[in-house]
Amino acid sequence: MTDRIQQTIEGITSPDAEAISEATARQGMLTKPAGSLGRLEPLSIWVSGVQGQCPPRDFERARVIVFAGDHGVTAAGVSAFPSEVTAQMVGNFLAGGAAVNVLASVAGATVRVVDMAVDGDTEPSVSTYKVRRSSGRIDLEDALTDEQVRAAIEAGIAIADEEIDAGADLLIAGDMGIGNTTPAAVLISLLTDTEPIKVVGRGTGIDDDAWIRKAAAVRDARLRGAAFRNDAIGLLRTVGGADFAAMTGFFLQAANRRVPVVLDGVVVTAAALVAQLANPRVSHWLAAGHRSVEPAHTIALDALGLSPIVDLDMRLGEASGALVALPVLRAAVRTLGEMATFDEAAVSNKDV
Amino acid sequence: MTDRIQQTIEGITSPDAEAISEATARQGMLTKPAGSLGRLEPLSIWVSGVQGQCPPRDFERARVIVFAGDHGVTAAGVSAFPSEVTAQMVGNFLAGGAAVNVLASVAGATVRVVDMAVDGDTEPSVSTYKVRRSSGRIDLEDALTDEQVRAAIEAGIAIADEEIDAGADLLIAGDMGIGNTTPAAVLISLLTDTEPIKVVGRGTGIDDDAWIRKAAAVRDARLRGAAFRNDAIGLLRTVGGADFAAMTGFFLQAANRRVPVVLDGVVVTAAALVAQLANPRVSHWLAAGHRSVEPAHTIALDALGLSPIVDLDMRLGEASGALVALPVLRAAVRTLGEMATFDEAAVSNKDV
Repeated sequence: MTDRIQQTIEGITSPDAEAISEATARQGMLTKPAGSLGRLEPLSIWVSGVQGQCPPRDFERARVIVFAGDHGVTAAGVSAFPSEVTAQMVGNFLAGGAAVNVLASVAGATVRVVDMAVDGDTEPSVSTYKVRRSSGRIDLEDALTDEQVRAAIEAGIAIADEEIDAGADLLIAGDMGIGNTTPAAVLISLLTDTEPIKVVGRGTGIDDDAWIRKAAAVRDARLRGAAFRNDAIGLLRTVGGADFAAMTGFFLQAANRRVPVVLDGVVVTAAALVAQLANPRVSHWLAAGHRSVEPAHTIALDALGLSPIVDLDMRLGEASGALVALPVLRAAVRTLGEMATFDEAAVSNKDV
Repeated sequence: MTDRIQQTIEGITSPDAEAISEATARQGMLTKPAGSLGRLEPLSIWVSGVQGQCPPRDFERARVIVFAGDHGVTAAGVSAFPSEVTAQMVGNFLAGGAAVNVLASVAGATVRVVDMAVDGDTEPSVSTYKVRRSSGRIDLEDALTDEQVRAAIEAGIAIADEEIDAGADLLIAGDMGIGNTTPAAVLISLLTDTEPIKVVGRGTGIDDDAWIRKAAAVRDARLRGAAFRNDAIGLLRTVGGADFAAMTGFFLQAANRRVPVVLDGVVVTAAALVAQLANPRVSHWLAAGHRSVEPAHTIALDALGLSPIVDLDMRLGEASGALVALPVLRAAVRTLGEMATFDEAAVSNKDV
């Protein structure tokens, strides 16, 4: 492990206990029955804690990073779409035509795409950190070399730094990569000790034959990765991929720098589980945007101790679920910050 | 029944079948796996249908109407808060300090408050349609007279007309009234043939003793209203109230004028069930914003055939749940309208 990765992992602290306690008290003074804003209340308190202030402030620069990468395991016939779609969709993101672009605009966020291992050429502006073309076929070989896994994790750290230095006060991770739910299923299976059949979903919409191939690939990769279930870097190297490694570094550095992150679907959440293995404190800095229909997603969220904000049967990735949840998080923040208290509004409270 | 009410009920038509079919086809051409946007897809198709165009357009004037009213049944000890809070909260709405104000700002909507039967004086600007001070104590007497129930329904029709004439392209109903979950429970119990004990919730947060008093009041009122379970106006008169009658007229006229409505919690949804009794087509023009923790809410949504957009354990009323859902509805509309198709983006589709 490099010094930089080690320092990132070891420097993760906890959210601000005093701000959490002030926010909890303030929720009880607002002009509404106690608890009547439901999930908005703990969400607002979480934001106070990670921002270290009460009331919390609405996010001024919510920033989406879509980590793009291809996966050699696609050759095992595990996806409904061909690998060429990954590079085509990167082009679609840059042109503004994808779901993530539209949903970011609705939610008041901006989008950056990073090519970590797309199996094709992408714009130079997005391929700065690219470590290879397609990660290895994990049912047969390692996803990455020693050097590549470290480079990809450090890329994620550097990307978090760049965004935070540019003023990002909320980070959102998204994914794009044909075949990427297969390594996600393997990682979640290993990290939650769940049998393969329970973590294999339909991805972009595979049929029964492809599902059987995917389950076999997950089983084979799981055997290859089993020796590393307590070694975050070993897992990323053997059964992860450059995109997963970059996301892991990204989550660790966001937590290290005390910037909150909203998770999207099963791919992003698998990387968050790897980050949690590196340092369990990372989960204090994470919120779960949505619940995907991929079965492994719920298993991973439970292991992180996170409840999704929305549950809309989505399964697209790209940060789409996290972005649909973002206005709910903003609503939580703004109610705590802007509602009048019983005293201010001269409204009688229950106990008066 | 007056001519105006009769015409409103009889003039309700269905959403545009051609727009629904175009929207369904367009969803299949967008750059994403079919179905991967989950609930956003049927929501976007619904908006196309009610707007009569594909793609649908984002709402330009989303308008919240909070129907305020007190209820004589509060004297039976069914609420955690005193009746004076209703008028105080109307003042809080006008001052901009309530949850509805903050959440409307987050969601890009504006708020109007209407005093239908507040037991106190409110600003003249909100009391134009007020029919009385507090509706009757429904466990012992009728909520309204014949004349009052008609005046309140016609007020709701007039309010819908005013808002639609002023350009509203999405209407959201909210409620404010200490004690109002009691008539809501009675109406839902009668209209869904559900025993009282299953529809009585904790409202703003009552203790066990108050819950027992509330259940008794619901049982007594239910006996008083039982003869009218097939008569919308009879129900509103005997066991409803001026706020419920106005909301019923409001939903009927919105549907009549082909303007979609997002429902909030149990009070608003009880009035929607009464509107459905008057004309079952009204439910085609309604979306369910959220699922409240009030047990009767889920029962009423099921009876309307509606699934809530968000489920956040909220129980505040004021349109708060509907407003948290509004950005999700906007996300649905904008993805259908603005995402690139596979052809436009030169992305390979699954079947290519």
